[in-house]
Parts: sequence; structure tokens; C-alpha cells
Amino acid sequence: MNYKMIGKFISRILILEAAFMLVPLVIALVEGTRADAFGFIWSILLTVAAGTLLGVLCRNENSRFQARDGLVCVGCSWIAMSIFGCLPFYLSGSIPHFVDALFEIVSGFTTTGSSILSDVEALSRSILYWRSFSHWVGGMGVLVFLLGLTSPGVRGSGFTMHLLRAESPGPDVGKLVPHMRDTAKILYLIYIGLTVLNFFFLKLGDMDTFEAICTAFGTAGTGGFGVKNDSIAGYSPYIQNVCTVFMLLFGINFSCYFLLLVGHVKEVFKDEELRCYLGMVLASIALIAFNIRGMYETLEETVRHAAFQVASIVTTTGFATTDFDLWPSFSKTILLCLMFVGACAGSTGGGMKVGRLLLIFKNLRRSVHRFVSPSQVQVVRNNDRVISEEVLNNTNAYLAAYGVLVILSFIIVSLDGFSITTNFSAVVSCFNNIGPGLEAVGPTCNFGGYSDLSKIVLTLDMLAGRLEIFPILVLFSRRTWKR
Amino acid sequence: MNYKMIGKFISRILILEAAFMLVPLVIALVEGTRADAFGFIWSILLTVAAGTLLGVLCRNENSRFQARDGLVCVGCSWIAMSIFGCLPFYLSGSIPHFVDALFEIVSGFTTTGSSILSDVEALSRSILYWRSFSHWVGGMGVLVFLLGLTSPGVRGSGFTMHLLRAESPGPDVGKLVPHMRDTAKILYLIYIGLTVLNFFFLKLGDMDTFEAICTAFGTAGTGGFGVKNDSIAGYSPYIQNVCTVFMLLFGINFSCYFLLLVGHVKEVFKDEELRCYLGMVLASIALIAFNIRGMYETLEETVRHAAFQVASIVTTTGFATTDFDLWPSFSKTILLCLMFVGACAGSTGGGMKVGRLLLIFKNLRRSVHRFVSPSQVQVVRNNDRVISEEVLNNTNAYLAAYGVLVILSFIIVSLDGFSITTNFSAVVSCFNNIGPGLEAVGPTCNFGGYSDLSKIVLTLDMLAGRLEIFPILVLFSRRTWKR
Repeated sequence: MNYKMIGKFISRILILEAAFMLVPLVIALVEGTRADAFGFIWSILLTVAAGTLLGVLCRNENSRFQARDGLVCVGCSWIAMSIFGCLPFYLSGSIPHFVDALFEIVSGFTTTGSSILSDVEALSRSILYWRSFSHWVGGMGVLVFLLGLTSPGVRGSGFTMHLLRAESPGPDVGKLVPHMRDTAKILYLIYIGLTVLNFFFLKLGDMDTFEAICTAFGTAGTGGFGVKNDSIAGYSPYIQNVCTVFMLLFGINFSCYFLLLVGHVKEVFKDEELRCYLGMVLASIALIAFNIRGMYETLEETVRHAAFQVASIVTTTGFATTDFDLWPSFSKTILLCLMFVGACAGSTGGGMKVGRLLLIFKNLRRSVHRFVSPSQVQVVRNNDRVISEEVLNNTNAYLAAYGVLVILSFIIVSLDGFSITTNFSAVVSCFNNIGPGLEAVGPTCNFGGYSDLSKIVLTLDMLAGRLEIFPILVLFSRRTWKR
Repeated sequence: MNYKMIGKFISRILILEAAFMLVPLVIALVEGTRADAFGFIWSILLTVAAGTLLGVLCRNENSRFQARDGLVCVGCSWIAMSIFGCLPFYLSGSIPHFVDALFEIVSGFTTTGSSILSDVEALSRSILYWRSFSHWVGGMGVLVFLLGLTSPGVRGSGFTMHLLRAESPGPDVGKLVPHMRDTAKILYLIYIGLTVLNFFFLKLGDMDTFEAICTAFGTAGTGGFGVKNDSIAGYSPYIQNVCTVFMLLFGINFSCYFLLLVGHVKEVFKDEELRCYLGMVLASIALIAFNIRGMYETLEETVRHAAFQVASIVTTTGFATTDFDLWPSFSKTILLCLMFVGACAGSTGGGMKVGRLLLIFKNLRRSVHRFVSPSQVQVVRNNDRVISEEVLNNTNAYLAAYGVLVILSFIIVSLDGFSITTNFSAVVSCFNNIGPGLEAVGPTCNFGGYSDLSKIVLTLDMLAGRLEIFPILVLFSRRTWKR
């Protein structure tokens, strides 16, 4: 293991994180309390100090590395980023309990949006900004940011490929252009462009500028932290619809936007994952709207709430306009299933990803065909491209790891005595980076009632879900740490 | 597809089934009502007629067959057996609704033990006998019975291998002795021996002979149909403990008993699946007993109920001595997880099987190791034997199919408006052939409240679960029916 290279990388991440804290520091100095300003100043100092120390200790790294170094680097970077990222909450006294502060920032970076707070409106603007910004930077990946928009400052160009693979969501990361760094740059530019567009449309609906910035951050990262206690419910129908559309847009594979920009329109509309995603969204909206007919006054309102909640859950954002925990079982079951599915690979959304489920489904169909005609050679294709057996094996391993981790977490969390639906939906919601669950962790409730042990388990679930399990899982394997 | 061979096989199964109905007919003639006797007479006549007709139509079969013919034959046999097996319930008027009668007999043959009846004590003894006997014959497999103890009457000896593989539970069927038919014979003799032993121990506790027979059938097949409305709760602690021990014994791979009989004691105690199964059972009993301390008067009673429920759920029997739906969340969560796990491969128990989960777990560990050191060749071993990639692939396909079918069923069943916990536990309970679920389908309730659509879905789930998915799944694949 190339510890020095990993250490140097983490040191860069921490310095970058400290730089990100400068904006909320300015907000705190302009209009915040003394405690907020001191919280940010101390957080920045500590983060810079840790980053510098690590950088000095890990000078003179060599450029030899193995595949596992990429995974370990991503796992450790996210953990380091979370520990220092929660300092503003903790040191400013906004969230006085450390485990709670850690839960909140991991929920932010992983774009989950679950909160332990019952009254977000009591927070100052500097803290609200940091909370929402964590969604934005976590959504596309802070390592991607570092690699794409600044100089990573470490040798070993092949290393970046491993990092991007480990941090980017989806079973199979494709390069858009020959160089990985250019790919990262293009992805971030599309991301910034879409976020600005989202902000612009929110402002058209007369939303307050600060709220529009935070809402755009939460939508872009498909995170779900809002600045109001009732999430998006208090805003106008226009704003709700803008959120619905942009949540769905941020759930689409960003390579589709790249293809659109370079004029390959036909390819985009033939993309199997995109078709499946849009079909599933439309079908779910129709089924739920039919199921909840009569619960709202007009057809427009019924469809608006159905569409908003479907978009919010399938993209794993977690905003809410209504308490869907009061909906009939059928609608709640559809939402629960959509929680598992998640958005498209290569988007900022979480969950298992539509593309991965398509692969699992196709692989299953092949297995049935193999039973039927064992002598025939059969391959799995996606968009007419043959999928390698390695990708299929990893997809299966992902599914198995997913099942094992969800069940283990479910058992530990159940020690707190909440109902089975509450616990199960809490684990699924955290693992898939959604935000709200059902019953005691439903859209009008929060995760504050869980014990510290459960919060730590759910925090690890959020990290494992965001990083697609393996970067976290390898940290727990003895073999990783053997020379 | 060799339709004639499959048809001839199904005809033999139906004749055998009619023969099985002779015992309850005698009971009905001796002490039953007119309706019961007529019900059995008509059922036998119809079943024999259908079997004979099919046999005549499918004369002169050739002995060419493919792998899929085995799967299709098993799937169709079980469906035919179920349709004719429910006739006694339906024609005697004991269960006047056909879908209910079908649900009940499939629950019997698949050894699920879920019931739509609220008052089983109102049934006559002939019907109760048929209900419990269906567990016994379904537990080890009626095709295994036909192949092992009678002459199958069809040509093509390699065909029997495919049939046994498709009907026997577990990821990998081993031959005990060189000939498959001798293997089947040995398995059934062990099965009969253990059942008689179970009956003997129940009689020692002064149980009524008829009740002891039915209880032994339900225990041996790990089924769960009882003859009392309160299942096993009304019997003495001795009887409850006998049931606990025998449920656990019937959940062990029968090849372990064969090895014991031929003196290979050491091999049995080194068997990884057996160790894992016993370890899991003991750990679950300890955790639950600790969790429910204070709910019962004495330590003996606490441990007895914990052990009984764990044995009943993990072996997928479904007997109950207490209403575990009233237990705290942690205990209920452990039971819900044990529902997924199930008993050992090669036993009469259902679920995913401990052995299969061990394979999934080992395969997952290999994937993590592959990430860590990609250049190393790595194999998965079980009891020091290398597992082939084909078995691993099928195991993964099983897991994927399992997930897809459970989620689809869960969505359809939720249309009836019961709670999420009720619906989810109902689907899991049926798919894993357990019996009771939680809340509205808990141990003191029944499945009678579901709509016909849900009952049909749950009936298919029971069949898919018992036959380990693929014999049912191939019936729905277009390729199977292409020439």
C-alpha cells in the first residue's frame, strides 16, 4: 500500500475543504453570531493544520500503486472529510452532540438528507449554507472536483482512473473523452451549468436568493436538506414543479448531457437506462396518482404531489411537499421499492441505480436461458455493447454485499425498539441516500430519536451507500492491511 | 421438449396422489360425514381419470430429453398435484372457495403452513389428515418418493438426475451413493425413520394418537399445519420441547444422517453448514431469551418459548407456542431475518438455505479480495472442496430472482391495503415456506383476509420458494416453449 500517496491526497482534500468553509465564514462574519464565526474559524484552522501536517509527513511519495490503493484512498478521504466537515456544527454549538454533528454532515456529503434536527429554521444562515453546500460538493464527488478543476498534486496518472471509478456511481464508468481529467472537468462544468439553471428558474418563482441557492444545492446533489421545517411544502406550486423537473434531470446519467452537447441526440434517446428510468417514473406517478385520488382537492394537486414525491424518492433527493406516510399502502410500497432502485448510474442520485438493476435483470434472464439451452453461448448486452463477465460478477457481489449490510444494520438498529417499518425504512433510506423513511422517520419526523449506536451504524450505511460499498468494505478486510 | 415423457410422468404422479387419498377416505368412511366421504371418492375418481387419460395420451414416449425437460416436468407436476390435491377440501365443502382450497393445499405440499382457516378444529379428521399428510409428502418431495420407492415407469435414467436436482432443496445436490435411485431410497428411509421416532416421543408425552401422527407429519415436513387453533401452545412443555428438537433435526442436511449411519462421525461435525446452522440457532435463542426476559414467569419458560420459536422459524415450520408478534422489535427482527435464512440444504426446511448463504458470503469475500489483489487466482471452497463457477453463478442468479419476485409480489399484495409489515412478512413467509408472518398474518391470525389476486400471488410464491424458483420461472420463459 502506498500510504504516502494516500496521505498526500487526503491532505489536499482537507485543504480544499477548508477553502470551501470560507464562504460560510464570510456569511457568519457579516450576519451571524459570535459562536458561528468562531466555529468556522476554528474549523478552518484545525482542518488546515491537519491537512498541512499530513502533507508534510507524506512528502516524497513514490508513484507505485495498486488497485486497492484507489479504493482505500476514496474510503479514507470521505471519512476524513466527514470528521473535519462536522466541526462547524459542533464547534459553533449548533449541534452540541458530536455523533449528531457527524451524522448530519455525512448525511450532507453523501446527499442523503436525513437529519437529526427537528427545527432547521433555528439554524443560522452560515450553518444552513454549509449544510446545503455539502450536498452539492458530495453529489458529483469531491475527489472528482479535485481531479477535474484543480491539480491533484500527486504523481501517478493511472491512479486518478482508480479514484474516479471508486467515487463515481454506477456499475461501469465510461470515459467521455480520452483523458480522465478532461472527463472530470466536463462533468463538473455540466453540473455547474445545470445548478445555475436551476437557481435561475427558482428565482423566476420569486424565491428568496439565499433559499434559492440552498435549494439548488440540495436539488443538484439530489440531497434533500432544505432550509424550512416543512421542506418544499410551503412554496408555490410553480416552485414545487421546478424542483420536480430538476430533481429528475439531476437523476439522469451526465454522459447523456455530454452526448446532447456534442449533437448525438439519437444515441441519448436510444439509451436503455434512460428509457427504463423515465418509463418507471411515469408509471409510478400514474399508479400513485390513481391510488391517492380523492385525497387532494384537484387533479392538478394530486398529480403534482405524486410526481414530486416520486421524483424526490427515485432520485434519492428526499424533499417533501406532503406527508406520504399518510398515503395508502400501495403508494407507500411503490415508494419503498423506488428507494431501492434509485436514479441512473453516472448521475448525482443514489440507490442501486437503474443501470445496475438492468444488468442484474439481464443476467438473470441469461441464467434462465442457460437452464433452458445449456449448450448455447450467451452474453449480456447493454446498448448493444457486450458487458464483460468481470462487471457482471462485481454487480452480483454488490447485490450480495448490499443484502448482507442492510440486514446487519436492520438487526442492530432494531435494538432501539422502534417499529419494524420504521427501522427497515430508516436503513434503506440511509443506505440509498434518500433521507426520509416511513412512520417514526417519515417525512415530517427526524432521526434524532435513535441511539448513538444506531446513528453510527446509519452513518456508516450512508457512506457505504454513497461509495457503492466496496471502498468502505475493503477498509474492514484484513488482507487490505497486509503488506 | 419431450412432452410425452413429461405427460407420462405427471400421469404417474396423479395416480400416486390418488393412492395417497385412500387413507383419509377410510377415515372419512369410518367416522366422517357423508360430505367428507363423497369429497374423497370424487377426488380419487377425478384424479385417477385425469392420470389415466394423460397416461394413455402420452404412450410410446421416446427417451430423448434435455435439461429443461427436468425443470418443466417438476414445475408442471407440482402444479397438477396441487390442483387435484385441493379437490378433497373443495368437493367436501370444508373449504367452499376454490382459490382458498388451492392456497391451503399448496401451503401443505410446499410445507409452508400458512392457512386461510380461522378455525381448524371445525374440520373433520379425514380432512385434517390430508392437510397434514400433504406436508409429509411435500417435505422430501413427491418426485423423490416416486423415483426412490416405486418404479418411475419412464425410460431415460439420466432424466431422474435432472428431476432430483430440480426438486431437492439447496444449491448443489450430492449423490450419497453411485445410483440416484438408491440415493432417493436412502433419503426416504431416513425420513420415515425420523418421523416414526418423532411420533414415538410425542406418544411418550401422552399425546392423542391421531394428533401425534398429524404433528409428526407437520414437523417432519417442516410444514406447520396443526390440528388445534392454538397450534402447539396448549400442549405440555415436554411436547413443546420434543417439537423443538425434532424441528431442528429435520432442518439438518439428510446426508449428515447418512454419514452418521455409515460411521463417518468426524465428517459430520466438521461440516461447515451444520456448524453455521447450529451456531446461528444457539445465538438467536440466547439473544431473544435475553431480549424477552421478564415477559414470562420463569427462566425455563422464557428459554422454551425462545427456542421453540427460533426452531420453528429457522426450519420454516411455523408452529407457535406463543404470540411472538407481541415480542419487542429486536426479537421480531431476528425472527424476520431467520425467515430469509432458512434451514440446511438437503433438509425438508425451506428458505434460502444456510449453505447457499455461506456460498454467497464466501463469493462476496472473494470479490473483496479480488479488488485488493486482482492478479491472484482465487477459488471458493466448501468443506475443502472447490465450488465450480457454474454453481456460484446459479447461486447469484437465485439471489437476483429471489429479490425480483419478492418485490413484485410485495407490490401486488399491497393493493389490499394491509400494513407494510403485514404484507412484507406475508410475502417472505410464503416465499420461504414458513407459515405465520407478523401483524395481520401473525401467529394468531390467518391469510383469509387477502383478496383472491393476493392469494394467487402468494400461492405462486409458495411454489417458487419450495422448488427454488427456476422450475417455476422457466414455465414463464418464452424460450422454453420454442421448439
